[in-house]
Amino acid sequence: MTAKPGQDAVHVVLVSTRNPLNIGAVARAMSNFGFGSLRLVNPFDPSFREARSAVGATGLMSDAVVVDSVADAVQDCSLVIGTTAATNRELHHPLRPLSSGATSIREHLSIGNVALLFGSEKRGLSNEDLAHCHFLLRIPTREAHASMNLGQAVAICLYELSRDAGVLHTPKAQPLATAADTERVTQLLFEALQKSGYIKPRTSTVTEEKIRRMIRRFHLEAADAEDFQGMLRKIIYRLTIE
Amino acid sequence: MTAKPGQDAVHVVLVSTRNPLNIGAVARAMSNFGFGSLRLVNPFDPSFREARSAVGATGLMSDAVVVDSVADAVQDCSLVIGTTAATNRELHHPLRPLSSGATSIREHLSIGNVALLFGSEKRGLSNEDLAHCHFLLRIPTREAHASMNLGQAVAICLYELSRDAGVLHTPKAQPLATAADTERVTQLLFEALQKSGYIKPRTSTVTEEKIRRMIRRFHLEAADAEDFQGMLRKIIYRLTIE
Repeated sequence: MTAKPGQDAVHVVLVSTRNPLNIGAVARAMSNFGFGSLRLVNPFDPSFREARSAVGATGLMSDAVVVDSVADAVQDCSLVIGTTAATNRELHHPLRPLSSGATSIREHLSIGNVALLFGSEKRGLSNEDLAHCHFLLRIPTREAHASMNLGQAVAICLYELSRDAGVLHTPKAQPLATAADTERVTQLLFEALQKSGYIKPRTSTVTEEKIRRMIRRFHLEAADAEDFQGMLRKIIYRLTIE
Repeated sequence: MTAKPGQDAVHVVLVSTRNPLNIGAVARAMSNFGFGSLRLVNPFDPSFREARSAVGATGLMSDAVVVDSVADAVQDCSLVIGTTAATNRELHHPLRPLSSGATSIREHLSIGNVALLFGSEKRGLSNEDLAHCHFLLRIPTREAHASMNLGQAVAICLYELSRDAGVLHTPKAQPLATAADTERVTQLLFEALQKSGYIKPRTSTVTEEKIRRMIRRFHLEAADAEDFQGMLRKIIYRLTIE
């Protein structure tokens, strides 16, 4: 096979990865399956680009983009997906098995960019990270030993994403808001709710995550996100001058 | 999910693996997907049982069986499958994409054991190794970068094997010959052909591999293998006393 159309719209995002060997293994699997865009949020070891495990994928490693936040890593994406072993933790998102989630991702590729997030080896993705996501994916491992090696988990996801599954025609759809637009809406709503006194300072972190998740559930179209921002700016302005 | 019925009939066979970290990664993926039997043919590093990459799978590592030959590793199996990146090499076997091969493997699990072979990191499986196989599997990677990391390749195969694919009912079938029985037939035929002068000494290695592959293509039933051995023993006896 060669890389399939749309695969360049997939961005693999590794959040706070500790072991450079794992980053190299991820790069190798990306190259095996024809994915080219790797983004790293605060990698633990700045020497990651020299990882010897990136066999055949050194170009991909040197092109990898390093950013400071999940928001930056997903800013041009309109579908953001987190991965989780999801064993004993309360989840606020729809959780889908890999095969079904991968179908949704493939359908999305003709209308916008997709970010696929993987957390650190020890802790996975935090609730703060997950708040940027539209839904979560789980590889169907045994519950008694659910947690996978990072490089293996990424390899399986990319294998599933690139498999021939008779990709369906996607009906003409309105362009969706990018994550950056959606985040702007989130921030404006948060500001509006703070200024309105709806949000109490001591619970603001939890509330911000709730709001972030809620806005993602809207799957905003680009035009709606713009309108929404205009409304919120107006509200904030009014709340400020009162 | 929990381990599915039949998964204990799958034996993962690593041939001449060099890096203990890869063996550990394989064990971890096996545990993630509910497979328990690991067999190692001539592992390069005898300290493999201490591999720190076997997170959550140290029991599986300590139960791993070490053998001297592929024949020993597959002796109780009636379906033997090799894995290959198959880029630029002449193949003597049917080559199937993972998804289709995995379906055949699942169907086989109710009638006999399956061995799934993975070669060394550098060279993969040799032609001698492959001669023990009934067919070959290929993970559909890009041709420009086909060769996968061993731990990732095993993880993808086990993911595919354990996926819910609406496993079909397998009609009641005759028990198939084990690999040990099949190998006995192979050896007897080889001996018969040598004694008959069919095989010239200087080409005997190549011919032995050809014969080994041919016998595997027969998918011998257990009873047929027994009869076949009787026939060959008789022939050899006659050739010897002439």
